[in-house]
Amino acid sequence: MKRIAILTSGGDAPGMNAATRAVVRKAIYEGLEVYGINYGFLGLVNGDIRKLELGSVGDLLHRGGTFLYSARYPEFATEEGQLKGIEQLKKHQIDGLVVIGGDGSYHGAEALTKRGFPTIGIPGTIDNDISGTDFTIGFDTALNTVLDALDKIRDTATSHERTFIIEVMGRDAGDIALWSGLAGGAEAIIVPEESFNMDDVVDRLNKGRERGKKHSIIVVAEGVMSGNEFAKQLAEYGDYHARVTVLGHVQRGGSPTAFDRVLASRLGARSVELLLENRGGLAVGIRENRIVENNIGEILKEKHTLDQKLFDLASILSI
Amino acid sequence: MKRIAILTSGGDAPGMNAATRAVVRKAIYEGLEVYGINYGFLGLVNGDIRKLELGSVGDLLHRGGTFLYSARYPEFATEEGQLKGIEQLKKHQIDGLVVIGGDGSYHGAEALTKRGFPTIGIPGTIDNDISGTDFTIGFDTALNTVLDALDKIRDTATSHERTFIIEVMGRDAGDIALWSGLAGGAEAIIVPEESFNMDDVVDRLNKGRERGKKHSIIVVAEGVMSGNEFAKQLAEYGDYHARVTVLGHVQRGGSPTAFDRVLASRLGARSVELLLENRGGLAVGIRENRIVENNIGEILKEKHTLDQKLFDLASILSI
Amino acid sequence: MKRIAILTSGGDAPGMNAATRAVVRKAIYEGLEVYGINYGFLGLVNGDIRKLELGSVGDLLHRGGTFLYSARYPEFATEEGQLKGIEQLKKHQIDGLVVIGGDGSYHGAEALTKRGFPTIGIPGTIDNDISGTDFTIGFDTALNTVLDALDKIRDTATSHERTFIIEVMGRDAGDIALWSGLAGGAEAIIVPEESFNMDDVVDRLNKGRERGKKHSIIVVAEGVMSGNEFAKQLAEYGDYHARVTVLGHVQRGGSPTAFDRVLASRLGARSVELLLENRGGLAVGIRENRIVENNIGEILKEKHTLDQKLFDLASILSI
Amino acid sequence: MKRIAILTSGGDAPGMNAATRAVVRKAIYEGLEVYGINYGFLGLVNGDIRKLELGSVGDLLHRGGTFLYSARYPEFATEEGQLKGIEQLKKHQIDGLVVIGGDGSYHGAEALTKRGFPTIGIPGTIDNDISGTDFTIGFDTALNTVLDALDKIRDTATSHERTFIIEVMGRDAGDIALWSGLAGGAEAIIVPEESFNMDDVVDRLNKGRERGKKHSIIVVAEGVMSGNEFAKQLAEYGDYHARVTVLGHVQRGGSPTAFDRVLASRLGARSVELLLENRGGLAVGIRENRIVENNIGEILKEKHTLDQKLFDLASILSI
Repeated sequence: MKRIAILTSGGDAPGMNAATRAVVRKAIYEGLEVYGINYGFLGLVNGDIRKLELGSVGDLLHRGGTFLYSARYPEFATEEGQLKGIEQLKKHQIDGLVVIGGDGSYHGAEALTKRGFPTIGIPGTIDNDISGTDFTIGFDTALNTVLDALDKIRDTATSHERTFIIEVMGRDAGDIALWSGLAGGAEAIIVPEESFNMDDVVDRLNKGRERGKKHSIIVVAEGVMSGNEFAKQLAEYGDYHARVTVLGHVQRGGSPTAFDRVLASRLGARSVELLLENRGGLAVGIRENRIVENNIGEILKEKHTLDQKLFDLASILSI
Repeated sequence: MKRIAILTSGGDAPGMNAATRAVVRKAIYEGLEVYGINYGFLGLVNGDIRKLELGSVGDLLHRGGTFLYSARYPEFATEEGQLKGIEQLKKHQIDGLVVIGGDGSYHGAEALTKRGFPTIGIPGTIDNDISGTDFTIGFDTALNTVLDALDKIRDTATSHERTFIIEVMGRDAGDIALWSGLAGGAEAIIVPEESFNMDDVVDRLNKGRERGKKHSIIVVAEGVMSGNEFAKQLAEYGDYHARVTVLGHVQRGGSPTAFDRVLASRLGARSVELLLENRGGLAVGIRENRIVENNIGEILKEKHTLDQKLFDLASILSI
Repeated sequence: MKRIAILTSGGDAPGMNAATRAVVRKAIYEGLEVYGINYGFLGLVNGDIRKLELGSVGDLLHRGGTFLYSARYPEFATEEGQLKGIEQLKKHQIDGLVVIGGDGSYHGAEALTKRGFPTIGIPGTIDNDISGTDFTIGFDTALNTVLDALDKIRDTATSHERTFIIEVMGRDAGDIALWSGLAGGAEAIIVPEESFNMDDVVDRLNKGRERGKKHSIIVVAEGVMSGNEFAKQLAEYGDYHARVTVLGHVQRGGSPTAFDRVLASRLGARSVELLLENRGGLAVGIRENRIVENNIGEILKEKHTLDQKLFDLASILSI
Repeated sequence: MKRIAILTSGGDAPGMNAATRAVVRKAIYEGLEVYGINYGFLGLVNGDIRKLELGSVGDLLHRGGTFLYSARYPEFATEEGQLKGIEQLKKHQIDGLVVIGGDGSYHGAEALTKRGFPTIGIPGTIDNDISGTDFTIGFDTALNTVLDALDKIRDTATSHERTFIIEVMGRDAGDIALWSGLAGGAEAIIVPEESFNMDDVVDRLNKGRERGKKHSIIVVAEGVMSGNEFAKQLAEYGDYHARVTVLGHVQRGGSPTAFDRVLASRLGARSVELLLENRGGLAVGIRENRIVENNIGEILKEKHTLDQKLFDLASILSI
């Protein structure tokens, strides 16, 4: 292994730059050359590849987004795409690849490895929905962004509009909703993994009011329904004039938190170690507070699950 | 003048607490007693009144919201409401009143003064839509909240979803949209005061793309239409998959900025000086960087206007 | 167990309120009554005790500091102090106690338990220097505060003053320095656990300059020496005009991060469960991403150690 | 006027990039070509000059520091330096220059104009110590940075260490200390423009304690003395264990606030208008909430003064 490359793929997440920096610096420290691929697998296929030096990743650690740009490129699932990708890598005499992203990136990394090109996956997505790691890069930053919004809503104290709904990201995974809702003291947290009953929600809101709460906050993961839809349904249960906040892509931005930067740095460095051992088809992660690696194929079979105990705790603490 | 009271009314705004603190401390410094009225004019009519000391407003300067609570109470427009209010004030031997809020609060302040009870208005609203002052308390904080969201959206760099729409507060006034859009480099700013043409918007977006812009941001004041509605209309003009962020009441929260706290402190102190001179029916404000007071009746006749030059500047700078 | 109490002790840390809220709400949920003790062990001895309700801990989750106030009270190490404390607890018919703080609090908790009064310790300190837990409540928030300062320093780009020194908290433990330095890309991290050599530091700075770095940042834990002293020593090695930032107690403040709030919530709830099982003399913590409890006596014997691998990683990545 | 150039000089300030962006975009909008000069007057003399396009200033509006780099270069005060500078400008066929910075930059701008090269000054410094403008670019951002530190210190509630000292920037001007102290509710504000008496300070602290204040905060401008020196002097007056925070260059960093970005945008655009009218030797500024320009020579004679009324207000409100 003399030359490795790195790309970021899928939805961008804060900390991707920190991970890229770690890959580049660790690799150069180990005597490798490093190449950056722009626009994910799309750029790989198109040969949008350039050499990275120590200084190429300077002043990047604290930047949101990804300076390598990201792209969704479903065509990489085809044999043709993968072969073209490997051709480009070989043309640049690259021997190993690091891919930062979510499930799609992992599929690409597994496919490349199966075709003989060792590739490592790093979990980078705000959704925290990837198996094989307790936390994904970007999740902690997104959480704190949502939390900041929750705290600000808590500040307002008008008496008429008492119920606030915040729609947060999470199509299949409720982690952002659950953690931000717990941290922000939301009265109800609606996630894709748990069915809910509007009667119960209304019951909780009413109980809160009875004991003097000035306002109630409901966090809804977009995967369940939109914030507006939730407000409409809630309105049918009484004279609720719920105000809706939809954070959208704001959740993807921001300077990464300390946690995300440290996690990204550790995972980036570990990826390089694995490539140096000529191992591929692995995804790095943090499990039980330790940096680990797992077979990507097995990870893709696992399903990320919600922490049920945490969900129950959130309910107990917001009474 | 031996005893004055203070209330906050209408939608709450960051800095209301700072203004209340200034009124209380300045008044006590001048030898007055101060009473706080909870829930605005509603609390006034109901006699929800308590004495405030120096320490009552300690640790409040940096808190969002209003610890006196706010309420909308249209009934105060009636003679009956106003007479009841004055009765309560007299019962507590209060000689002057300070009201923090928007237009509604000003109407109340004017009515009370006309009935012989000297009342001063302080402009507290995030919308910056009150005449007689260049800036209202809370506007600067709201601006920076919107700006933070704009900056975060700017961080994301995916290549597919290029257009972002942020719906911000402002039913009749576009100041939040204009200032945040200018400060955040938005490609288009849609405000109630200026008609717009979807063709022009699309034209701007296309030009930006042609010269290599990765994404475009459009700020829409809620008074024009909702962010979702705007996205729908935009979609009819091409294959735009605009992502929508609706900040909602998040804009009302947060610890007030330095600017808002200093402004609130100065306006609060000035209000007390006016009451000490036994003057009422005035609204304090900042004009041309000087603390001023104006006749409320005249202010209510004036219409807040958008700064046309600033609007044009925003357009020039985001090309 | 029908009635429990809670106090916060030692230096305050962001998230103490979140932990207190969790103890109160979980306990009430389980049918217990809860009392709050002001000013730590000092207030315990003095009987500064009041009942807490669900609403007593409302609107607290996001507040820094501790609404129960904290105090250092070394006199609680004496038999007299402890007996007086137990007397007060019995007077209020309290059967169990939760103590949030650092080492000193743990000693108190152990002593009370040995005298027959079951007491649980929760690790609350920004220093992350308590054994039995991978993270203490407040550490993550303090980290992000330091990081924000590091990022801001990174923004400045004057050419003359190239070296910046940030003195951070940590008398015996270098965790704040190490994690913030790694996350902030500091060129050198000086911690109490690792000896350092000024020649090596200077060497690193020079290498950075040679490859074009505009400025260098050195993070120094206060336990090694003050930032000013470090600057003085550095100046003897060349024409360095290092600028010093001393964050001081700023590191103790701020609204707790999501991580700290979730950790505090989990640890608070777990404490109540342990008391319900009539167990005392234990400290709760998070280890390997799981909520655990350990015998306090054993924890106090263990020494918190620096993560050597992380320290080395920081050095590799900031080349 | 067909071609203009821009440079940033002296200590950098948040918002310098926003001003540069405004100059570039406004100039291109008006049909001009724009050149950027790196490292201030030093780069001018050395010919470190490159063409800027619309896209050169993309993604810069929210960045702290200055992407043109800044430098102090006292040698530009000499005839030789100025002639060399003009030579370089002529070599690049540049007809007008915009200089962003403080007093030093203004001297340079005046000298160039006197030698026949029209140059405009934009006030960019966090100190707010330049005449001819009510606010300088960067002041508002620095203020909010200091305020954030003040708020965080306010969160801590230990009972032993009650007095906190924050040393802030300001060698000759106390504006940062005054505004942040007023906005943060500091018990004492020590500025270069006002003599102070340690007896009075101690008296204020004691009075605060008597009425129940948990802690006191003193803001000291570095121009009066260092925070450490102040703590030492204070200690001689009693058993004060004041904790010192020295923010240092942290105050220079950070993403500019909305206020600073809007101000920078307006001043940048106005500079271009003046050059288009072939006017030089002027400094733009904001006075009485209006964009103005003043003769630099006259401005340099004026002395920035502290707002005495604001200083007195701060004292009244923090009782």
